[in-house]
Amino acid sequence: MNTIGTIFRFTGFGESHGAAIGGVIDGMPAGVKIDLGRIQAELDRRRPGQSALTTQRRESDTVEILSGLFEGVTTGCPIGFIIRNENQHSADYEHIRHAFRPSHADYTYTAKYGLRDHRGGGRSSARETATRVVAGAFARQALEQHGISIAAYTSQVGHIAVNGDYTTLDLSLTENHPTRCPDPAKAAEMEKLILDVKADGDTIGGIVSCVVRGCPVGLGDPVMGRLGARLASAMMSINAAKGFDYGMGFAGVASRGSEVIDRFLPGDLDPARSATNHSGGIQGGISNGEDIYFRVAFKPVATLMQDVETIDDHGNTITLKGKGRHDPCVVPRAVPIVEAMAAMVILDSLLLNRAARI
Amino acid sequence: MNTIGTIFRFTGFGESHGAAIGGVIDGMPAGVKIDLGRIQAELDRRRPGQSALTTQRRESDTVEILSGLFEGVTTGCPIGFIIRNENQHSADYEHIRHAFRPSHADYTYTAKYGLRDHRGGGRSSARETATRVVAGAFARQALEQHGISIAAYTSQVGHIAVNGDYTTLDLSLTENHPTRCPDPAKAAEMEKLILDVKADGDTIGGIVSCVVRGCPVGLGDPVMGRLGARLASAMMSINAAKGFDYGMGFAGVASRGSEVIDRFLPGDLDPARSATNHSGGIQGGISNGEDIYFRVAFKPVATLMQDVETIDDHGNTITLKGKGRHDPCVVPRAVPIVEAMAAMVILDSLLLNRAARI
Amino acid sequence: MNTIGTIFRFTGFGESHGAAIGGVIDGMPAGVKIDLGRIQAELDRRRPGQSALTTQRRESDTVEILSGLFEGVTTGCPIGFIIRNENQHSADYEHIRHAFRPSHADYTYTAKYGLRDHRGGGRSSARETATRVVAGAFARQALEQHGISIAAYTSQVGHIAVNGDYTTLDLSLTENHPTRCPDPAKAAEMEKLILDVKADGDTIGGIVSCVVRGCPVGLGDPVMGRLGARLASAMMSINAAKGFDYGMGFAGVASRGSEVIDRFLPGDLDPARSATNHSGGIQGGISNGEDIYFRVAFKPVATLMQDVETIDDHGNTITLKGKGRHDPCVVPRAVPIVEAMAAMVILDSLLLNRAARI
Amino acid sequence: MNTIGTIFRFTGFGESHGAAIGGVIDGMPAGVKIDLGRIQAELDRRRPGQSALTTQRRESDTVEILSGLFEGVTTGCPIGFIIRNENQHSADYEHIRHAFRPSHADYTYTAKYGLRDHRGGGRSSARETATRVVAGAFARQALEQHGISIAAYTSQVGHIAVNGDYTTLDLSLTENHPTRCPDPAKAAEMEKLILDVKADGDTIGGIVSCVVRGCPVGLGDPVMGRLGARLASAMMSINAAKGFDYGMGFAGVASRGSEVIDRFLPGDLDPARSATNHSGGIQGGISNGEDIYFRVAFKPVATLMQDVETIDDHGNTITLKGKGRHDPCVVPRAVPIVEAMAAMVILDSLLLNRAARI
Repeated sequence: MNTIGTIFRFTGFGESHGAAIGGVIDGMPAGVKIDLGRIQAELDRRRPGQSALTTQRRESDTVEILSGLFEGVTTGCPIGFIIRNENQHSADYEHIRHAFRPSHADYTYTAKYGLRDHRGGGRSSARETATRVVAGAFARQALEQHGISIAAYTSQVGHIAVNGDYTTLDLSLTENHPTRCPDPAKAAEMEKLILDVKADGDTIGGIVSCVVRGCPVGLGDPVMGRLGARLASAMMSINAAKGFDYGMGFAGVASRGSEVIDRFLPGDLDPARSATNHSGGIQGGISNGEDIYFRVAFKPVATLMQDVETIDDHGNTITLKGKGRHDPCVVPRAVPIVEAMAAMVILDSLLLNRAARI
Repeated sequence: MNTIGTIFRFTGFGESHGAAIGGVIDGMPAGVKIDLGRIQAELDRRRPGQSALTTQRRESDTVEILSGLFEGVTTGCPIGFIIRNENQHSADYEHIRHAFRPSHADYTYTAKYGLRDHRGGGRSSARETATRVVAGAFARQALEQHGISIAAYTSQVGHIAVNGDYTTLDLSLTENHPTRCPDPAKAAEMEKLILDVKADGDTIGGIVSCVVRGCPVGLGDPVMGRLGARLASAMMSINAAKGFDYGMGFAGVASRGSEVIDRFLPGDLDPARSATNHSGGIQGGISNGEDIYFRVAFKPVATLMQDVETIDDHGNTITLKGKGRHDPCVVPRAVPIVEAMAAMVILDSLLLNRAARI
Repeated sequence: MNTIGTIFRFTGFGESHGAAIGGVIDGMPAGVKIDLGRIQAELDRRRPGQSALTTQRRESDTVEILSGLFEGVTTGCPIGFIIRNENQHSADYEHIRHAFRPSHADYTYTAKYGLRDHRGGGRSSARETATRVVAGAFARQALEQHGISIAAYTSQVGHIAVNGDYTTLDLSLTENHPTRCPDPAKAAEMEKLILDVKADGDTIGGIVSCVVRGCPVGLGDPVMGRLGARLASAMMSINAAKGFDYGMGFAGVASRGSEVIDRFLPGDLDPARSATNHSGGIQGGISNGEDIYFRVAFKPVATLMQDVETIDDHGNTITLKGKGRHDPCVVPRAVPIVEAMAAMVILDSLLLNRAARI
Repeated sequence: MNTIGTIFRFTGFGESHGAAIGGVIDGMPAGVKIDLGRIQAELDRRRPGQSALTTQRRESDTVEILSGLFEGVTTGCPIGFIIRNENQHSADYEHIRHAFRPSHADYTYTAKYGLRDHRGGGRSSARETATRVVAGAFARQALEQHGISIAAYTSQVGHIAVNGDYTTLDLSLTENHPTRCPDPAKAAEMEKLILDVKADGDTIGGIVSCVVRGCPVGLGDPVMGRLGARLASAMMSINAAKGFDYGMGFAGVASRGSEVIDRFLPGDLDPARSATNHSGGIQGGISNGEDIYFRVAFKPVATLMQDVETIDDHGNTITLKGKGRHDPCVVPRAVPIVEAMAAMVILDSLLLNRAARI
């Protein structure tokens, strides 16, 4: 199952070390003038090799759009695209051909399918997320025509967390720092932590926070199609994601209802506004016109630059050398992926909502 | 969108104060001998009015199975069922007909659909979760034939949390206490907190934890159909759910990879076992044969037994009296719902996995 | 798979001799004032026992709507409904419990599922089509708000066919005759044929033709969602349906392109009109604003009122007495079913089309 | 909607004169050793320019597989592929940029989407069917491992039809003649007719017949997922298809039930066999182990090599010169497309059927 969405549907393909990755965006509404430079720019944000914090695998990650545009405008027909894989060192992975690395997908893929493409993790590599970024970039340009914007940022790395939520931060600073943390002081701390972890050949986790602004009232459907459920599914489909919450989320469980209900302000109802937004912009599973904000937790990934004892595909103990090119912390590069997934969910929900009334 | 699942698909219907709630279970595999008493027993676990901790709304919640069984065995045909609504006091809700209660679905439903059934919250009421419990109970009986069991429990209410994870608890105690917390001491504390909150006409949130045992290797599909994404979507579709994580989840972001990778034990590969299970039974989006464990955060619900100032459907300020019958804490009754949703996801994934190989 | 549709989704359940049949209509747009009398009236058109041409099985077929309506108007929430089975003579079917009737679903269901509900054909009975009629009746009331109407009629029984297509007939006469053929002379011939066939304990096939009027331009999606493909799937899902064509259909294969292209008339483009409508209202898979017309072929059903030699579930030869209550020709009662399926497809396509442009 | 299938899902993209066409095959079971030469060979069967009967547009139609294979074996991961467009004469279509050709998709696409890619028909061109052939070729190689084979052939062109059904023909002769009619005498007549039609700058329709052999019992699901409905949808999604029937189809409506029921033969039940196969291998919507056979009617396509009077996008009359490169009869080239669509439906149904029983 490599598809997400009901109306706006994205289907991706590709492995880390195959010929190319790519996908099909189906259900893209017609009439969106596409800025291809900005599509590529989104992809560049995710690209590895941009700072000392990320893997030094270098790929130009140039997207080629193959269909669905005519004279720069979406036609309503499916948008096919590919990104050629380059700089592949397949031989670098020969040592894991018969190995099951701990906490990787090596064992589960092999057990499920009877074989696996071991090169660079194959389909389980985060490389496929580049295709999500392309699809999300199309969705974003459609959303802009409805005044909807999406901004994610690194809010925690290891134990270092920003204080306060997005309303206290200047999100225009996010891209200024390789950590993608908009708080410069915290960003510096995070960077130091990541470099320390990297020096140890280790990895560290973190949290990406995201806010959707300008979302109209009415997105999301009771009951299985709650907007929070759709966002959760999209976010938890990202590699290394282990948790999702929105609004008050996990922190809110200790609150009393009277403390956290969002009291409406009298006045205009288009939309109604409330004094607070503990709900995170979603009530009864449906967007209420306030900002939608949520968090995604990422684990410390399992690819260590250390010797690791594990088993081979006969169940025998082996020792793997830490090698290859890997991120000590995936969180900075996850920021554009979270935005892309959010854009797809919101656009799909926006289009679905048009069927709400006769 | 009131359907969940791809092969095993459940579609529910019904409002709090309509004639009945019910649903259709499609894709239930043939050949499962159904114990109807146990279906009803699951429903009874969710039923209100069972202790001082829950709403005193009393409904017998008797499920009537209308199709899909022949001589007690599933036939592969869809299972239709209904639960008649009883003990309806629709007039109790006349005061909210034109009101938008804060942090409820009143406003969003009205804005989306142009009207709403205000009685008891209509479709947004947690009443519909009874139909999920029925569908989940069918799924569980199917899963039992594959040796898979599911157990949820209350792990936190307000700031009171059990120590340790499921492996340190005796989950056979869960049903012994109205809180559904298997730690008797913590259960007592939680109970006291809920009663205090109730006395204040207030509400409190909490966390349900859940473990799936006996799950075979191979469930879940890369990349959009990751098992964690499916579980997240299912759980976040439950009323009042605000967060989901699995394995180390949010807590794990501060760890280093070297601390939390699950080292394989040499030996048999059917399945391979690891020394730890920080991954939560899912690697690369696919079950690895270890226990799958996750958490669901529930907010303090918005229905207070206090006077609340809010707006009406003209945007004017009004004051609502706190009345009706409501749970001060939904967490104990959410336990069987979480189990039901997990059962549906796991069975669907089990059936999907049969197509993994030629 | 008992669901049809993407946005407007109908899921049915129920067997011939179970407690009830019913279904869930999900995605019904909000704001449609429903005339319940007309819902029941549609169901009455399909009901058996109304003339000498149909089975004498008598059921009141009273539909009970359980949800999704509030004060007579659709709320956007799923509409659950049931129709209780009555007048069940399950014992009448004891003789086929271990028999595989020729050209029935007895063998295929048993082979697929390992068991079957033999009573009255179980799920394979045409009884389930009553639930389609209910769902279709809701769809029709929604379509009426967009000026779209649907009319089917019996165009052929055995070798007796009406001359000309729907444009030459007065479709207001369809309901005047038990055959549902709007040509009175042909209707009389058809009636005589059906009665002759019935007297022989035999059955006969026929064709239902249908026209959709008032359909806007733009319904249907390239390429897998062509409107003709959606209609074909819906029609071929009806019991005993063996063929579908639209526009010129099978007859058109012998034509030359120059004879059958639909030449546009100069003038207004909203919509553009053409001098002829050989295309059947669909071009490139998308409705063009002309009438959509199509045919559905129904086989002579296999339930004979004759002794039939067949096999039992051990493969041994047995002789079955012709008994039970059955239609000698299903075509007249298929007319409202064809309309119902068409209404669901057209409404779903109408709602989907709202996402065509940004 | 450019996707077909539930488990085995194909999503295509691409326009006639864009950079490339292609698609993603998702849900391809792992472990199928793929003969890439045979994939290309299927594509070559559909390729234009192979005889005087087809368009002289010449494209090498070379497929590039980008993912989902590892060392020649399917991995269970999605198979992305592209076919570069070549030999494009976009300027050839400048004259139709503002024209609505009669019985084409020009008007409906423009009306639906607000714009269209006019070059070569854009997405509405039959060029996209090349991607279906690739996907079908993968499906066929999977089906072969289950002993299932599929053979289509031209059974009618204009008024010239083969006598008898597939059982009376030697289908090994199909590829011997450019018409793909396995009856040499009829093939010669068809060829002459097509050449005559071509000389007139005209087009002619026809019928493709198809048989699926070796299909196990149990494929297809009641009631909306009847195998006949799935095949109908797939076939009617092909360009220019106007009708579908299976088994006796339209011809059978004039029969009596007693003449056409398929009497079981006593003996083995794995599978049960019947003396005749009027049912066309499907009973109750489920395959019964007999041959599945069906027909697809194709209209005479609308692209004439004659002057045609039509309208422009302002509704004014214009005259179009007949030019470009087009097939006078699409039927011969539709043969591999019908086979490809059948292969996808059968494989998807085969995989779905694995979930029928617990």
